[in-house]
Amino acid sequence: MSINEISANKSFEGWHKQFTHSSSVLNCEMRFAVYLPPQMEQGKKVPVLYWLSGLTCTDENFMQKAGAHRMAAELGMMIVAPDTSPRGDDVADDDGYDLGKGAGFYVNATQEPWSKHYQMYDYVTRELPQIIEGNFSVSDKKAIAGHSMGGHGALMIALRNPEMFVSASAFSPIVNPMNCPWGQKAFTAYLGDDKDEWQQYDSCYLLQQAEQKTPMLISQGQADQFLVEQLKTEALEAIAHEKSAPVTIERHDGYDHSYYFIASFIEQHLKFHAEYLS
Amino acid sequence: MSINEISANKSFEGWHKQFTHSSSVLNCEMRFAVYLPPQMEQGKKVPVLYWLSGLTCTDENFMQKAGAHRMAAELGMMIVAPDTSPRGDDVADDDGYDLGKGAGFYVNATQEPWSKHYQMYDYVTRELPQIIEGNFSVSDKKAIAGHSMGGHGALMIALRNPEMFVSASAFSPIVNPMNCPWGQKAFTAYLGDDKDEWQQYDSCYLLQQAEQKTPMLISQGQADQFLVEQLKTEALEAIAHEKSAPVTIERHDGYDHSYYFIASFIEQHLKFHAEYLS
Repeated sequence: MSINEISANKSFEGWHKQFTHSSSVLNCEMRFAVYLPPQMEQGKKVPVLYWLSGLTCTDENFMQKAGAHRMAAELGMMIVAPDTSPRGDDVADDDGYDLGKGAGFYVNATQEPWSKHYQMYDYVTRELPQIIEGNFSVSDKKAIAGHSMGGHGALMIALRNPEMFVSASAFSPIVNPMNCPWGQKAFTAYLGDDKDEWQQYDSCYLLQQAEQKTPMLISQGQADQFLVEQLKTEALEAIAHEKSAPVTIERHDGYDHSYYFIASFIEQHLKFHAEYLS
Repeated sequence: MSINEISANKSFEGWHKQFTHSSSVLNCEMRFAVYLPPQMEQGKKVPVLYWLSGLTCTDENFMQKAGAHRMAAELGMMIVAPDTSPRGDDVADDDGYDLGKGAGFYVNATQEPWSKHYQMYDYVTRELPQIIEGNFSVSDKKAIAGHSMGGHGALMIALRNPEMFVSASAFSPIVNPMNCPWGQKAFTAYLGDDKDEWQQYDSCYLLQQAEQKTPMLISQGQADQFLVEQLKTEALEAIAHEKSAPVTIERHDGYDHSYYFIASFIEQHLKFHAEYLS
């Protein structure tokens, strides 16, 4: 459970830091980033927002581009950004940007050559929270958010762990990976052909099954180039409507899939989580 | 004067856009980025802040990492971010990160092999403003800001063009390039050994010479790894004090040279400029 600080930048009177650690779940060395709000230096136990990034990202994209530190500092919220896959020279990979390193899809792989390292579901829901709670002065309140593949991860993990996360939010999430090219490619590789395996990682399926009480906020840009083929927001929207689930979906004209969209609405997302984390 | 739009992202109800154009001053194709605040779509002529970036940067670093769009949208301020040097396969370069491409130092080179393309002073003070004013609905009010090498550029250009820019600000600027390794290396290459040439690009020298009326704000992190050897804030501070110049220098404990520092105080800088631009 020991972690190694490799960088520290003061930011909005708090700290952005990166750590490496040996992951027993992923069987490799991992890096993650945190934002530590100034309230932590004053000895206050703060709640934690886990942020899951999208395809090709590392822990760095969100911290550098989302402009989230300002509001996290104001709200007194720690942010934890893990990497998007296991890493290292002996970790299986693929030439595509949407499979292998940078594309873990937050599942526990069952298939060769992926299963040895690609256990991102367990990493995010079990090992990483233990590390955070063992090394930082945090409260037991947790929320989860993400973008695109990470939006899929955040909603899916919240749906499967209603006692663990008080709220979930997503920008441009892949809500129905079983029925889009990105999800089908990744699930086939990591999970094989067993659709029962696939379902447990599909937010539409999970929302259909259970009574969902975790409040969720989804922001979707209407000029997002992946909206129709990959994201399929309307599929989750229909199920949420049918089940009267506490899911708010906001569509924004003109916004695309980029971090400029995330930056434009991150304040709203952080305030949404703060309502449940406080 | 024609420009070619190559990307557009909606951001805080305005637009981040990138353009390319053929520069007659630099003799190459250049790229620049703009933030267009939402007030422009309502037909309002807005003032312009020119942002000059530091070593190794392109037009992208500030737009992606500074978190400036939020406040620019609120204040109704256009931001223009040029590249930091001429670009292209036939442009002279150097192996060092601090000379050649990405390191134009905002001077007009007089020496071979640099003089054909490295005319960044004229580009920023003459050609680029003409392009902006010819292609966007802007008012005639301009301010200038920058970081590190770009902080040097912003202060030096404001000192030499008091009628052109209503205010200037800088994060972690190189205030005395004649007396630091970065500046000496670049000035020797671009300008030769003639110290009279060097002086016209040195903010300390320029501030010493003229009565300066342009209000200036400088933010400097005290944990900046370049502070002592390269930035030499205290040299400008002493001259400003001696001359009772309108230069505010704020030192911030714990902050380093990174964009996390810029993001933490960009709101203050934009509000500082808005006071003079309105």
